[in-house]
Amino acid sequence: MVKVENTKNIAMSDFIVNLDHGDPTAYEEYWRKMGDRCTVTIRGCDLMSYFSDINNLCWFLEPELAEAIKELHAVVGNAATEDRYIVVGTGSTQLCQAAVHALSLLAGGTEPVSIVAAAPYYSTYVEETTYVRSCMYKWEGDAWGFDKKGPFIELVTSPNNPDGTIRDSVVNRPDDDEAKVIHDFAYYWPHYTPITRCQDHDIMLFTFSKITGHAGSRIGWALVKDKEVAKKMVEYIMVNSIGVSKESQVRTAKILKVLKETCTSETDNFFEYGRELMKKRWEKLREMVKESDFTLPKYPEGYCNFFGKTLESYPAFAWLGTKEETDLVNDLRRQKVMCRAGERCGSDKKHVRVSMLSREDVFTVFLERLDNMKQIKSIDF
Amino acid sequence: MVKVENTKNIAMSDFIVNLDHGDPTAYEEYWRKMGDRCTVTIRGCDLMSYFSDINNLCWFLEPELAEAIKELHAVVGNAATEDRYIVVGTGSTQLCQAAVHALSLLAGGTEPVSIVAAAPYYSTYVEETTYVRSCMYKWEGDAWGFDKKGPFIELVTSPNNPDGTIRDSVVNRPDDDEAKVIHDFAYYWPHYTPITRCQDHDIMLFTFSKITGHAGSRIGWALVKDKEVAKKMVEYIMVNSIGVSKESQVRTAKILKVLKETCTSETDNFFEYGRELMKKRWEKLREMVKESDFTLPKYPEGYCNFFGKTLESYPAFAWLGTKEETDLVNDLRRQKVMCRAGERCGSDKKHVRVSMLSREDVFTVFLERLDNMKQIKSIDF
Repeated sequence: MVKVENTKNIAMSDFIVNLDHGDPTAYEEYWRKMGDRCTVTIRGCDLMSYFSDINNLCWFLEPELAEAIKELHAVVGNAATEDRYIVVGTGSTQLCQAAVHALSLLAGGTEPVSIVAAAPYYSTYVEETTYVRSCMYKWEGDAWGFDKKGPFIELVTSPNNPDGTIRDSVVNRPDDDEAKVIHDFAYYWPHYTPITRCQDHDIMLFTFSKITGHAGSRIGWALVKDKEVAKKMVEYIMVNSIGVSKESQVRTAKILKVLKETCTSETDNFFEYGRELMKKRWEKLREMVKESDFTLPKYPEGYCNFFGKTLESYPAFAWLGTKEETDLVNDLRRQKVMCRAGERCGSDKKHVRVSMLSREDVFTVFLERLDNMKQIKSIDF
Repeated sequence: MVKVENTKNIAMSDFIVNLDHGDPTAYEEYWRKMGDRCTVTIRGCDLMSYFSDINNLCWFLEPELAEAIKELHAVVGNAATEDRYIVVGTGSTQLCQAAVHALSLLAGGTEPVSIVAAAPYYSTYVEETTYVRSCMYKWEGDAWGFDKKGPFIELVTSPNNPDGTIRDSVVNRPDDDEAKVIHDFAYYWPHYTPITRCQDHDIMLFTFSKITGHAGSRIGWALVKDKEVAKKMVEYIMVNSIGVSKESQVRTAKILKVLKETCTSETDNFFEYGRELMKKRWEKLREMVKESDFTLPKYPEGYCNFFGKTLESYPAFAWLGTKEETDLVNDLRRQKVMCRAGERCGSDKKHVRVSMLSREDVFTVFLERLDNMKQIKSIDF
């Protein structure tokens, strides 16, 4: 049982618990403990050019970052990097748009390409594919039941954001040249989910933010099989922002290298640390939700090739539901807890997405407010 | 007279002189000489959050960068920062698109907003306003002679890219609410042009790349008068890339602070250094072009408030022309000199844009190849 004190004070305080965004500050403490191991020093005359490697298709990708990415995937075993192009982006957000752009362009038709994702989906996909009002593609919403003819792109997030489930494409069009899939593997790392296979898809997106918690760096990468797709993605990023911050790239390279080193360490293993942290939070949350009107998904165990044992999933977001007929996001807002409405994710009012990656004190206050809601409900007559 | 040796060897060599992009590596030497004064050190636990300042409209702007920007403009006197919102971007490229997006959205019509720029214009504007095929706006080309009804946005670059002229809007629609202007002041700095007035327009864009030469950092900023415009620009950047690299921002802040300090220094003044460097290059180029079929624009002198004296302009690009009926970009390509075709800038085949900001050795080889072209022409019969 989670012990909660001063519920009234906290509930009445003005402090807003913002768990809407997945700001991954949970891991700060780990990196603080690492001291100088990840420190980067950049001189005034360093990294001045637009170009990182003019012989690389992705000419704005720092070679040391490419190296660090390949090494990390090799050690973790979550994705194949051989015979693929690495495209770096200003977060996987920019890369997702670059990939949608590239695939739509290469589809070559006059009608907009349909974009779909199986609900509940990452709500930002909606904004990403609608805000510029492109004539090249069109957001068509939920992939379940999608049966429109013509070229389409399915966005597959696995483990899924917001509900943590393991996903594959749901639009069933095998051997259809017009069917394209972008795999978003932002959360396919050992602290969140068992690494059951080495992913090998055409376009795979990753983000530094959700691995180590360095969201402020805005670094993501795509592993792309097809040269033409990679080329068009690079062209998109060239026009969109003329490449990607070099400072962020060299710092990411440094931190990913240290992360890789810790994978063989007895005491500092980052993924072990992250898994323990997530496990504790999920246990506390499940305990709090137990015997209440709140609901949480259940996840099957899986054999993790990285840890060499059978493990549970501890997703980066909690897909919190309620058995009552109520607007959960508003109920939580009244308790000064901000989270993402299920409706924005193509789901219903009875679900919300709650970030599990906040700082520890924020997570604790969240639990306290959830407990407060339970108490209010119990005296509701 | 510029002395040229080994012309034949150089002309026959495979070394490609790329002056197509304005990669501003010319200033590397200056920053090298500054030693540790601009060095930044970033620990593993620093700058992890998406957020820089949740109380700022531009919540991903690092406060120290905002401070450095305001201080620099105050010292240089090139732009007003009072009562304006600062929006940081992944280069001014992203900001230009954010501004076009914001203004088009706020125009609120059903027809696309027209986008124009007076020829010769920055060729990238064409790509920036066409690549996503937005239904919100439409590139309409040359602003000279533009007379379409309805809302429009004029992109004004001053000093102009590619031809270095001082510009103001050319579409004459005073007091027309549908007329919007985005001022791109990438080159309005004392090493390129006399600072004759403190600019005070609605939307002004600046880029770190062209001030100090740090193109790899991908940092730009907009000074925006209207709150709604600033808000919509921030929203664009949020969906486009969820903010801007924090590492680049803190490094930019550091370098801009040092740059500001050098402005009151007798020996290290960066703008003095930059102006001397540009002056020498322009003198060499003008000498080379003299008594040839090549042409270069002439610029009026102006009283520079920053330097306190009357000065010439030394633009970051040379707008090189020829008196002959020829395709100049191809003539130069045959000499293994890459530059931007005048046609891409809304001009003709007889003009090209040549970057003046390359490393010194590259600039020297460029002059040698230009001299070689003169020699070939002189024996042409």
